[in-house]
Amino acid sequence: MSGLYFPTRSFQIYQTFAANTNLGKTLFSAGLLRVAATDKKASRLFYLKPVQTGYPVDSDARFVDKFVNSKILNTKTLYCYEKPVSPHIATDKPPNDKDVLSRVKSFISECQIQSGSNGEGKLILETAGGVNSPLMSGTAQCDFYRPLRLPTILIGDSKLGGISTTISSFEALRLRGYDIPAILLFHDSEYNNFQYLREYFRNYDTRIHAISPPPPKNNTAETDHENLRDYFSSTAQDFQNILKQLNEWHHIRFDRLESMEKKTMKKIWWPFTQHQRVKNVTIIDSAHSDFLTTFNKNNDNEDVGQAQMKEMFDACASWWTQGLGHGSAKLSLAASYAAGRYGHVIFPECTHEPALDLAEKLLEGVGKDWATRVFYSDNGSTAVEVALKMALKTNLERNNIRDENSIKQTGKEFLVFGIEGSYHGDTIGAMDACGPNVYNDKVKWYKPRGYWFEAPTVHIKNGMYSIDIPKSIHPDNTKMTYFFPSLDSIFNQDQLTTSDLVKIYEEHIRRILSSFIGSSEYQFGALILEPILMGAGGMKLVDPLFQRVLIDEVRRNKIPVIFDEVFTGFWRLGYRSGADLLGKKPDIATYAKLITGGLIPLAVTLTTESIFENFIGSEKTDALLHGHSYTAHPTGCFVAKTSLDEYERLNKNSLHWNLAKSQWADHEKSSTASSYKEPIVWSFWDKKIVHRISHLPNVKGVVTLGYASNASQSIVNELYSSFTSNNFGIYARPLGNVVYLMTSHVTLPDNIRAVEEKLVECIKSSK
Amino acid sequence: MSGLYFPTRSFQIYQTFAANTNLGKTLFSAGLLRVAATDKKASRLFYLKPVQTGYPVDSDARFVDKFVNSKILNTKTLYCYEKPVSPHIATDKPPNDKDVLSRVKSFISECQIQSGSNGEGKLILETAGGVNSPLMSGTAQCDFYRPLRLPTILIGDSKLGGISTTISSFEALRLRGYDIPAILLFHDSEYNNFQYLREYFRNYDTRIHAISPPPPKNNTAETDHENLRDYFSSTAQDFQNILKQLNEWHHIRFDRLESMEKKTMKKIWWPFTQHQRVKNVTIIDSAHSDFLTTFNKNNDNEDVGQAQMKEMFDACASWWTQGLGHGSAKLSLAASYAAGRYGHVIFPECTHEPALDLAEKLLEGVGKDWATRVFYSDNGSTAVEVALKMALKTNLERNNIRDENSIKQTGKEFLVFGIEGSYHGDTIGAMDACGPNVYNDKVKWYKPRGYWFEAPTVHIKNGMYSIDIPKSIHPDNTKMTYFFPSLDSIFNQDQLTTSDLVKIYEEHIRRILSSFIGSSEYQFGALILEPILMGAGGMKLVDPLFQRVLIDEVRRNKIPVIFDEVFTGFWRLGYRSGADLLGKKPDIATYAKLITGGLIPLAVTLTTESIFENFIGSEKTDALLHGHSYTAHPTGCFVAKTSLDEYERLNKNSLHWNLAKSQWADHEKSSTASSYKEPIVWSFWDKKIVHRISHLPNVKGVVTLGYASNASQSIVNELYSSFTSNNFGIYARPLGNVVYLMTSHVTLPDNIRAVEEKLVECIKSSK
Repeated sequence: MSGLYFPTRSFQIYQTFAANTNLGKTLFSAGLLRVAATDKKASRLFYLKPVQTGYPVDSDARFVDKFVNSKILNTKTLYCYEKPVSPHIATDKPPNDKDVLSRVKSFISECQIQSGSNGEGKLILETAGGVNSPLMSGTAQCDFYRPLRLPTILIGDSKLGGISTTISSFEALRLRGYDIPAILLFHDSEYNNFQYLREYFRNYDTRIHAISPPPPKNNTAETDHENLRDYFSSTAQDFQNILKQLNEWHHIRFDRLESMEKKTMKKIWWPFTQHQRVKNVTIIDSAHSDFLTTFNKNNDNEDVGQAQMKEMFDACASWWTQGLGHGSAKLSLAASYAAGRYGHVIFPECTHEPALDLAEKLLEGVGKDWATRVFYSDNGSTAVEVALKMALKTNLERNNIRDENSIKQTGKEFLVFGIEGSYHGDTIGAMDACGPNVYNDKVKWYKPRGYWFEAPTVHIKNGMYSIDIPKSIHPDNTKMTYFFPSLDSIFNQDQLTTSDLVKIYEEHIRRILSSFIGSSEYQFGALILEPILMGAGGMKLVDPLFQRVLIDEVRRNKIPVIFDEVFTGFWRLGYRSGADLLGKKPDIATYAKLITGGLIPLAVTLTTESIFENFIGSEKTDALLHGHSYTAHPTGCFVAKTSLDEYERLNKNSLHWNLAKSQWADHEKSSTASSYKEPIVWSFWDKKIVHRISHLPNVKGVVTLGYASNASQSIVNELYSSFTSNNFGIYARPLGNVVYLMTSHVTLPDNIRAVEEKLVECIKSSK
Repeated sequence: MSGLYFPTRSFQIYQTFAANTNLGKTLFSAGLLRVAATDKKASRLFYLKPVQTGYPVDSDARFVDKFVNSKILNTKTLYCYEKPVSPHIATDKPPNDKDVLSRVKSFISECQIQSGSNGEGKLILETAGGVNSPLMSGTAQCDFYRPLRLPTILIGDSKLGGISTTISSFEALRLRGYDIPAILLFHDSEYNNFQYLREYFRNYDTRIHAISPPPPKNNTAETDHENLRDYFSSTAQDFQNILKQLNEWHHIRFDRLESMEKKTMKKIWWPFTQHQRVKNVTIIDSAHSDFLTTFNKNNDNEDVGQAQMKEMFDACASWWTQGLGHGSAKLSLAASYAAGRYGHVIFPECTHEPALDLAEKLLEGVGKDWATRVFYSDNGSTAVEVALKMALKTNLERNNIRDENSIKQTGKEFLVFGIEGSYHGDTIGAMDACGPNVYNDKVKWYKPRGYWFEAPTVHIKNGMYSIDIPKSIHPDNTKMTYFFPSLDSIFNQDQLTTSDLVKIYEEHIRRILSSFIGSSEYQFGALILEPILMGAGGMKLVDPLFQRVLIDEVRRNKIPVIFDEVFTGFWRLGYRSGADLLGKKPDIATYAKLITGGLIPLAVTLTTESIFENFIGSEKTDALLHGHSYTAHPTGCFVAKTSLDEYERLNKNSLHWNLAKSQWADHEKSSTASSYKEPIVWSFWDKKIVHRISHLPNVKGVVTLGYASNASQSIVNELYSSFTSNNFGIYARPLGNVVYLMTSHVTLPDNIRAVEEKLVECIKSSK
């Protein structure tokens, strides 16, 4: 059983964080546990001090033990250091964060097991120092404890200046997604911070409680002890009130969690969802890095005490958006900075740093050596609409059809070339640029406006690399499969001069083009394609050689080439863009999804100066009259800029990226194990596991690139309900008859190994 | 001359904020000014302590004066209080924030004037206490000083716990949009916070400087003084280094500001903009409440020292998005909370609190008594595409055309009814639902799919209220104008039973409908309209009676009614929705813009259970297969929920809203001045001014409602370049031949009066 380190209905857990050191955290912990011990329903109480410095002179656990003095209380300290300083300088040999968190999780889980299923248990986890004080490794504590996202009691500061430190600490916790049901501080009649804070937090879901300050501690140990005892007695009712409020808050939270499934089923209309088929709603309480923390109501069991939170590996990368993982404090702070500096501001004929910075970054990155202009919009679909408008007008200009009426009069229909199985979004313009498929089948205003080439696709089966050439392409009019020694040999750009397939592709494409170009019925305005990998169309890996030939042939006919890089952009395929892996530049390209690291919607359409110039004219209507209210919203632009900087850093420095690359390299050709030629194709997924999966009898084929792979559908439910060796579930989403698994750019190798292991197990056991 | 309270190239301004009280803010100020005084280029130095408590025992200005001891230094304290406590408890008669800020601005402006245009001047503004410490009024200082957004020197804490308070203070400043070029703190060999912080901020644009701690202060006044003198001498080089870094930062900032116009012109492709016509780029450095702070490069003058920042009233409400004003700390914190708790998470078959909370709030608000389902998307245009897909399929189901092929086989074209001049967005589906207009004129894939009714419009001219009935509607086939005693008499729902116009409208609409319904060529899938006010189409106020009649007539034909409330929703017209003012409920409605208070993109389409049920079926393709990657992104949902809560609060409690309502009420009919019947139509704009403008000879007509009004175009440049009596410019955007002025929901009456005054002046002087 996993996830026992999260609260349940009957087992309450709180962590205490303080606005500064020496504000009485331990005193408050003791006061709360002391009155909790008098509760008849409480079966067990626990106090956990993960890190104690100044030990053994100071021991907060000992203090709590002494003043609570109850058989049902267990206290525990995990790491002790003698120096009375911050944990990061208290030791020369800091344990790593993973181990510390693991010990914290284990202890809490044990407490829950000890408490049993029916008893009402409570645990207080007491942090050290202030909210942003570092742990042994140097990680700020508010970041370190974030995976648990425990409800937080903030110990406020009643001294001069304490209003500021209390509010700032509150904000530091909030921007990391913590809920703070209560702020506790001492009464102080001179500064009266309590009163100010109560007014300040009036509209927040946070209650402020003040308690009399403890007696001064300047007497003999015995007298001090007696004074404190008296103090605890005299403040018992106050602590009782706090406990009552926390208890109410806890039950309201669980009431809400338990009601969410039904309410969602009644009020939400989900995208892409046949509601009739939905059996189970995944309630996402929060998320961190690659994990969704879900609340799993045990429907078969009336005992709500068994309700569990659980960590699920987000193997759909939340619709392919995740680059820097969920709940990144860095992105949260970036978003709030831009929100605080601008909110949203008007953009046409205006400029602001986030928009210009991002534009420059894009033009030096994905747009390098081809693009000069950036057009902002909100999502992949709108970016594609913009791209189509750019291309269609350009094509007219290039063909010197400047008179609007002449094209209308010819009655020619404006079409695009594309690839069968492409997907470009769900607004009507983007839909019309795709061939008939499941998405547009019943949409009344959908009208296919194009010709879509069947494309050869790449597979790995039984450890062999192959390209399937569809019947329509091959001169013999038969379906053919070509085998290759490696993925690199398929992706190698030399293929364009050496491969036998070039001629086959060229002849096929020229035949099709000649039947359309110069037609009196049609005018072709663009070629639009997803480089290398077709996402929503079923994670199909297209032979890059075919796309290269197609692009060259289309370009000869003055038709602009659009790359839809919404899915493939920003290192999704291990390269800055699909174009980089393909080795071809577009005239127009669209980007979204990963651009904001996986936080908020933003999209861009990049293009060349020559395309931009087609919209320059004396008339307003010559311009691209397209826009959205939040065009170039500073929050999105600044978050995107921060994310792209981070991707660049990962590409340069990440050990995990280098490890993955090394693992896909052909080491046999290198002289030593540590030196190797960087592979063209690489992935976070283990090469050996990919091969092993490709050998399994019930797997049709495997595709892997960057951070995506697919497998047969029958395993998705199994992944959902099982636990990996690292104690998490796997949240994958089916895509038609394909199940894909996708990571973020910061997924840890350990977690990928655990996912792979579980995947193989599930495929093997599936029928 | 205005805006002299902002830095210029030659006049540097910094504010010091501290992580807590008593960290040596004044010492650092003195140290910096002391070395600055030795700079030969420095013409003037200034030290401003806006608020001093503990006076006259403590006087930070005196301390600075004493130790800088330079003729070119001017020090100033604006407010002094005797008690050595937080300013909010130091006085019983707190001055209001506006006056305090005004005095701060005046002092800084005077300093700049004293400095002259060529001298290099510097000013340090020293705050009191910590970043979130309150001012006299109780406003947190980091919020109070935000309109100036001065570059900030953060004084860090070198003591135990100081890492946490320093980082948390940094974060509190960042989430309010401050730039922090430097953090200064004392060296401390025991805790070594300096070292940790330098590593922590490695990837930020913030430098960490440590200075030796000052000598202990326990001797005679004379010795203390001498020790400090020695201290300043020995640390002079350190302070010099800090000054140098600040100086570099300042010039990089101004280099950037000065380069932004050219770079933007070269790299950005603006929405809705004919680039050839752009003469001037507005560089938005930041924004707060209703103001854009712009950087205005003086192109005619080589003296960059004259470059000015300026506050511009955002009279286009940044494309009508602004509800809670720019740079709201509340929204910034809300955004960062959701970002920190979730980032983005997958939505289909899932749920999370922000999405469910917002859905519930919407269904109890704009959706009350009609809607049961919420579908999320990214902007108004996508929300309209979703609405159209919902309506079109519903119409088929309602007409029992269940077989997909039967509609295709009939060859019927699917159309919508609408109103001429409507605008619903720029994706092809949304465009197709609008009649031919300037926006779609040159879009190749645009195809008008509908019939659009000409509509009667409301005007105010020469103080008279009238409705213009187009020729096509009136039975006499002549254009007619009907006059009304008040706007309320036009908007009164009684009109539906009493007005002579009902019959005219009914007959006209029935005639049109009968020519289409049952046609073998067309099938009508929806009526789509913007209730009351057509925004992008030219801010046209439609006779509500006409829309009421149209809705009733269309409904009789089983055609679903879509309200596009992207512009009119959420109190833009003084009502929770356009529907509320119209007195009619839709079957489907779209909302965006104001939903997030004006921060980030988010849109919703609301509808009824009966429409939802048309998409329930055994096939996946029966579902609404529409979605965007960031569907229901938690950040947007949580910000939206926070904004809607705030609007509700304003509606209940806002003095300014009540003032505006009272001002539009018909007081003559009430017995006393204070009691009045709440008007149906009300606006932030002054009723008398609106009338006065309507009398001006060069004004064709005025429309005012909620927070929008329009005027002749010739005045927009004049508004841009002039200053109001409150010392700000006005940023308005033309819309075709209409200029509209729009506020947020929190605009202060003073500012509106200043805008009105300037507007009248500009209209009068325009030709």
